[in-house]
Amino acid sequence: MTTALDTSLAYFAAWTQGNLDDALIHVSPDVVCLAPAGRLEGAAQLRSFMEPFARSLRSSALVSAFGDDSVAVLYYDTSSALVAWAPAAERHTVVGGLITEVRIVFDRLPFEQARAAAGA
Amino acid sequence: MTTALDTSLAYFAAWTQGNLDDALIHVSPDVVCLAPAGRLEGAAQLRSFMEPFARSLRSSALVSAFGDDSVAVLYYDTSSALVAWAPAAERHTVVGGLITEVRIVFDRLPFEQARAAAGA
Repeated sequence: MTTALDTSLAYFAAWTQGNLDDALIHVSPDVVCLAPAGRLEGAAQLRSFMEPFARSLRSSALVSAFGDDSVAVLYYDTSSALVAWAPAAERHTVVGGLITEVRIVFDRLPFEQARAAAGA
Repeated sequence: MTTALDTSLAYFAAWTQGNLDDALIHVSPDVVCLAPAGRLEGAAQLRSFMEPFARSLRSSALVSAFGDDSVAVLYYDTSSALVAWAPAAERHTVVGGLITEVRIVFDRLPFEQARAAAGA
């Protein structure tokens, strides 16, 4: 049986490799995402949020991953074009093998600073 | 036997109640903390980082908590004087009942914006 963690790890492996099509196989069309900038509704909004970052990713490393029947939590590091070291955590609710809720937390400040510097 | 998660939850319960003395009972004097602003070394630096936020806290809610023999991950929401809703995640390494490493991620941007607005 596929656990919530299996689903989350498959999603994570796909998007961190830039494969948003593959990532979204594991996501409900009606997914809700609580992101730093606010609430996103539906897989298309989640994709629009994640894809630019996935494309800018240079590397990622899973630090810890845990889960139970319906929830998984991932803690990971990223390195991207804008920010050399940006940790993040995600908490997924998984129903029937599909992620129905994504809570994601990361520090937007260095990304804002890098964008401001690039525009200066 | 006390698990890593027991230790993490005791630390979390104490600091979110503003009891830094009690929280630090569960922390190694040599703790390393990887925070958004950089690396902190030692329990005193961790306390200096956490205490102002703990004092400003209005409420907190643990969303998910998982762990194994030596690692725990907490995902939680906070509401504080500066920011009404600020999720965070922590990943703890626990050795002999003491937290030896804290990785903490949260979004500094709304805190910076609130400070800038208050100073304007």
